[in-house]
Amino acid sequence: MPVEVLQQAAAEMTDWRGSGMGVMEMSHRGKEFIGIYEQAVADLRALLAIPSEFRILFMQGGGIAENAIVPLNLSRAGRVDVAVTGSWSQKSAAEAQRYCSVNVACDASAQDFRDVPSPAQWRLSADASYVHVCTNETIHGVEFHELPDLRALGSNAPLVIDFSSHVLSRPVDWSRVGLAFGGAQKNIGPAGVTLVVVREDLIGHALPICPSAFDYATVAKHDSMYNTPPTFGIYMAGLIFQWIQRQGGVAALQARNIAKAQLLYDFLDQSAFFENRVSPAWRSRMNVPFFLKDESRNEAFLAGAKARGLLQLKGHKSVGGMRASIYNAMPLEGVQALVDYLREFEKEQA
Amino acid sequence: MPVEVLQQAAAEMTDWRGSGMGVMEMSHRGKEFIGIYEQAVADLRALLAIPSEFRILFMQGGGIAENAIVPLNLSRAGRVDVAVTGSWSQKSAAEAQRYCSVNVACDASAQDFRDVPSPAQWRLSADASYVHVCTNETIHGVEFHELPDLRALGSNAPLVIDFSSHVLSRPVDWSRVGLAFGGAQKNIGPAGVTLVVVREDLIGHALPICPSAFDYATVAKHDSMYNTPPTFGIYMAGLIFQWIQRQGGVAALQARNIAKAQLLYDFLDQSAFFENRVSPAWRSRMNVPFFLKDESRNEAFLAGAKARGLLQLKGHKSVGGMRASIYNAMPLEGVQALVDYLREFEKEQA
Repeated sequence: MPVEVLQQAAAEMTDWRGSGMGVMEMSHRGKEFIGIYEQAVADLRALLAIPSEFRILFMQGGGIAENAIVPLNLSRAGRVDVAVTGSWSQKSAAEAQRYCSVNVACDASAQDFRDVPSPAQWRLSADASYVHVCTNETIHGVEFHELPDLRALGSNAPLVIDFSSHVLSRPVDWSRVGLAFGGAQKNIGPAGVTLVVVREDLIGHALPICPSAFDYATVAKHDSMYNTPPTFGIYMAGLIFQWIQRQGGVAALQARNIAKAQLLYDFLDQSAFFENRVSPAWRSRMNVPFFLKDESRNEAFLAGAKARGLLQLKGHKSVGGMRASIYNAMPLEGVQALVDYLREFEKEQA
Repeated sequence: MPVEVLQQAAAEMTDWRGSGMGVMEMSHRGKEFIGIYEQAVADLRALLAIPSEFRILFMQGGGIAENAIVPLNLSRAGRVDVAVTGSWSQKSAAEAQRYCSVNVACDASAQDFRDVPSPAQWRLSADASYVHVCTNETIHGVEFHELPDLRALGSNAPLVIDFSSHVLSRPVDWSRVGLAFGGAQKNIGPAGVTLVVVREDLIGHALPICPSAFDYATVAKHDSMYNTPPTFGIYMAGLIFQWIQRQGGVAALQARNIAKAQLLYDFLDQSAFFENRVSPAWRSRMNVPFFLKDESRNEAFLAGAKARGLLQLKGHKSVGGMRASIYNAMPLEGVQALVDYLREFEKEQA
């Protein structure tokens, strides 16, 4: 989280802008919180250029809950297509099977998720309710730099994207999207808020077993307040949206994210000591898994990193190695500090 | 929220106790947040004297989501009993019907929810998966001061209580309870955290259509971290638990809540101008709906209240009149200020 955002939240904790109460004390139906909520929705709509035919919903349960909530709302045809490109989409496919038949449109597990079959090669169903894609696989470091154009691929199904771990890091081509969802805890900030952006024609078709609190029609009708929303989390998300505006918007963050990722990948690719194993066309700008070619030096590497304040570099246990997560809030200087350490460690150990 | 708790949260916002990061920046898998989580669970267990055979879960979606999540987890026998004693239990009964057959064990709607049939008169099923009771009906101001003893009533089903709006205002007789749930936004504080306390033998029987993120077995197995938990909300709940300890614990709050409620009801009962219409045995200590006998003076009453800083007194639209919510954080002095205003308004208008 940007420190200036945390400082603002601290300053407003007991008295939000002269209202005499903190955000956590506000009724979600009072005019103060309604104002905070509407500003957050409007700012997000502007930042991501979300067209008017899409509704913006704030929900709860994170991306993992949406793995069930999406099919509970959208799978009425009984069949969905899922592109399996890493751990997250693998989980999405497994969860959707509780509610409908799942066609695996592509499966990159045989390549250890280091590459993704071109969408032109995917096996899409004629009658799918939707096609699910995780556009940034946090654990495997795989990102779609362009969204699949389903119509060009012969599918009339809406595209559902899980953009949890790279939301607001780049613009979204909404002409290719039916629904986008994401937990807020990566680029937005507070855990406990789930963002859902859904085209209006996809609302109102939930299965009868869908809980009311997770039926997009109910949530949309009540402006995300059918159940009490996570008020403080929505307020914090709003502060992040304003911070992004001050950074120059999403395009400016995208340019910065491209520069950050290039700095790190360029170093890894020329190194004799470290490597990233993801096919260059699919490398994530948010999550960069990398390996020491001599893995016996992993512990020494992590100890040296910690001594420099470079934390949370250990890779996910399912992949091993290292992983640098370089979300929006990470400045270029932070990536430079990591590359400096990688270079010195390599020189020292060579 | 107690102001000292908000001040503590503000002071720790950018640096939690020398860790170099704020709670909102912590990984939920890091040792700092795990410590915060474990302390909150231990403090809550001590405050409410929760026996070891119960698991404490922090979930998301509030009481309204639990109206679906409870039957998704517990209704395997296909039938549940619900005591309909106000708006909240009415909603619970309607939602459960998505998943099982619902037997209305009692229905107080014919009495406008001003009274509750004695549990001895309830029509309990022989084969119910559970019996659902909302132990404090926020809108109608109806509270169970004693939990029904289902075994004494001839039912072997576990009792499920929705204690959202009076949790931590008094002790709980766990020998009569199978599962208790509550949204945190009344007596605990931060919206977006749902508390579930469930006896271990009731875990592990979810219907196949239950989303993984809401399956108590999955949540319990992962210590509430199968999906990313609402970390900041759990931290705030923990601060409230410590505040309750400093107040002398739940028994001390109960004594204070009894005194607060008695002060207000005693005034209303002797007044010729105001009235509470709930049967005395069922009056809530948290939510006190009351009416001006001459309702044409409602607007003048609310305007005078606002001028004194007595806010949020308008009753729920389904009931009308006025409502005073006197949760744990409301001191006796706050109730005294309300009674003083009621007395003066009555004298002035008489």
